[in-house]
Amino acid sequence: MVDTHTQVAGPDLALDHLPTPYLVVDHDVLSANITRLHRHLAGAGLAVRPHVKTHKVLEIAALQVAAGARGLTLATVGEAEVFADSGYADLFIAYPLWVDEGRAQRLRQLAGTARIAIGVDSVEAAERLTGLLDPRVELMVEVDSGHHRTGCRPGEAGAVAAAARAGGLSVRGVFSFPGHSYAPDAAAGVAAQEEEALRVAAESLRAVGVLPEVISGGSTPSAAEMGAGVLTEARPGVYVVNDAQQWELGRCAREDVALTAYGRVVSSRPGRVVLDTGSKVLGGDRAGYATGYGRLLDHPEARIVQLSEHHAVVDLPEGLHRPPLGALLRVVPNHVCVAVNLVDHLRVVQRGHPPRTWSVAARGAHT
Amino acid sequence: MVDTHTQVAGPDLALDHLPTPYLVVDHDVLSANITRLHRHLAGAGLAVRPHVKTHKVLEIAALQVAAGARGLTLATVGEAEVFADSGYADLFIAYPLWVDEGRAQRLRQLAGTARIAIGVDSVEAAERLTGLLDPRVELMVEVDSGHHRTGCRPGEAGAVAAAARAGGLSVRGVFSFPGHSYAPDAAAGVAAQEEEALRVAAESLRAVGVLPEVISGGSTPSAAEMGAGVLTEARPGVYVVNDAQQWELGRCAREDVALTAYGRVVSSRPGRVVLDTGSKVLGGDRAGYATGYGRLLDHPEARIVQLSEHHAVVDLPEGLHRPPLGALLRVVPNHVCVAVNLVDHLRVVQRGHPPRTWSVAARGAHT
Repeated sequence: MVDTHTQVAGPDLALDHLPTPYLVVDHDVLSANITRLHRHLAGAGLAVRPHVKTHKVLEIAALQVAAGARGLTLATVGEAEVFADSGYADLFIAYPLWVDEGRAQRLRQLAGTARIAIGVDSVEAAERLTGLLDPRVELMVEVDSGHHRTGCRPGEAGAVAAAARAGGLSVRGVFSFPGHSYAPDAAAGVAAQEEEALRVAAESLRAVGVLPEVISGGSTPSAAEMGAGVLTEARPGVYVVNDAQQWELGRCAREDVALTAYGRVVSSRPGRVVLDTGSKVLGGDRAGYATGYGRLLDHPEARIVQLSEHHAVVDLPEGLHRPPLGALLRVVPNHVCVAVNLVDHLRVVQRGHPPRTWSVAARGAHT
Repeated sequence: MVDTHTQVAGPDLALDHLPTPYLVVDHDVLSANITRLHRHLAGAGLAVRPHVKTHKVLEIAALQVAAGARGLTLATVGEAEVFADSGYADLFIAYPLWVDEGRAQRLRQLAGTARIAIGVDSVEAAERLTGLLDPRVELMVEVDSGHHRTGCRPGEAGAVAAAARAGGLSVRGVFSFPGHSYAPDAAAGVAAQEEEALRVAAESLRAVGVLPEVISGGSTPSAAEMGAGVLTEARPGVYVVNDAQQWELGRCAREDVALTAYGRVVSSRPGRVVLDTGSKVLGGDRAGYATGYGRLLDHPEARIVQLSEHHAVVDLPEGLHRPPLGALLRVVPNHVCVAVNLVDHLRVVQRGHPPRTWSVAARGAHT
């Protein structure tokens, strides 16, 4: 097969005819990212259950499963339905769902075709699920390992599990999301903190006679620091394509970024250009440690200093030749999960193949 | 007609059966917002050309036109196509578009059914449009009135207009977007600054023999400060539904907020609840002056202190009874334009009518 694209040195010109802005995945980088982390985690003795809210794309999930993923992690019942409809049969909704009659019915339906688990983080919630939840739907007790979002205290996990079991429900194990790993130099310390929290939680399950089959944690920043002392499963999401946050946290190299927004210079003045890659395609996330509202993949010294829905204002470093009006540039979103959710399709480039298109199948599956 | 809902004192319980999160428009508040601002601007001698990127909804545009809007403002060719397909015949894309062959063809098509104008902000861009742009597509010269995003300097507008005219293109006038009105106590000063910038720009058009038919400016924060001394047209967008930014800037009252995200308490601890209204439905915008990542409409003293895609962590004020697990709450997005773009439908409540659904017809029309 001929090499139909020129990815290395800048934007893939096979896409040059498309109206900007749009999101592009580099399949070669994507595949390498999956292989590398799955291999590392397998070597550390951990199963991988990637969070597919990052990409919401059936074809990417297939690559993850082919590379050994045990099952998929999802954020909503709607996302689980999309993946179940395509034959994915081991689904964990890592969220303390509010289950009403409608959701109970949808979960029952899912349990007919897939092994399914959901999160629960309080005795009250566990008791409420009694009689409402199909007993084929398993529970994972969510523990707060320091991110202080959802999750019970580690020592309370046993009480939650006992309440669920008393109501006739199955408890698969415990999990945590260490979101505070998204900070400079935090990953190793947070991984250790999460391991300790999950150790205490698992112990508290055993104390009430519940043997945790799965002890699950992790995030992309902390994934490389995780080991199997306590945990059995890792749930990274962003690693498949990475983003400016991972790059700026030093958790990936620039060459590991597999997803960019292609945009054009629409306005220009000395030292500054404006691109059409606004927050409508990049998302508006900007962590405290970020250098801007995303990064230019091919001009790492440039800074996106202002972002609105249709404008990314870029300050150029001294000495960089100012790209002309209409120039095609690649922008790395700060947080790729929110960027992908903004589009219906991803363009895919791969060495030796013509460009193709993937549907963001679970976009907008909020509920 | 019977009163089928109970809007005033909290969430509309006619929607209680829907899985959260979702966005809800209060039709009564929406209508009042439109009537009030259109009346004010008409009284000030200004035509209204609302920016419909805020809502992207055909039914809302119809209300705006019924209340006297001269035409619509849009951000992309794709948005213009959606509204043109529904018969809107006076469309201004307030953006310095990069026009390639594909866009030139689409604009030609639009010009066959609508009066259409686009932005241009440099001599170079104006010269480039020669021979490419259908001459029925008019140009509006964009001027930087202090927001420092796109737009030429006011005194350069004449040169841009002259270049366009030399290329056989029609120049309708000048415009600006005073985005720096989004700051505490800035509105009156920014409105005056914009008026002066547009005065200079209009003068520089006249100096090259181009009579500006339209002199257009404005934003929701500055709309109440605008007058007809220089300007002929106002382009507010957010005013139709308002949002937490307008509320916190003091540019609307709490009762004027017409769009909220309905969400439920999914997790709880003393002094804090977590709602399922994450950034996937609120958007992630947070200006420097904002008190949080959105506001609870019915609990103004509460603060959304942490936001991720599926979680809004809310700190409750002392003395507020903690809403129980599953409680339905209304959250006002910080920036409504980005919130609406995240959903396919809006739920609509209106006194005396059963709830209905509007499609976000131009969602995702990025290009």
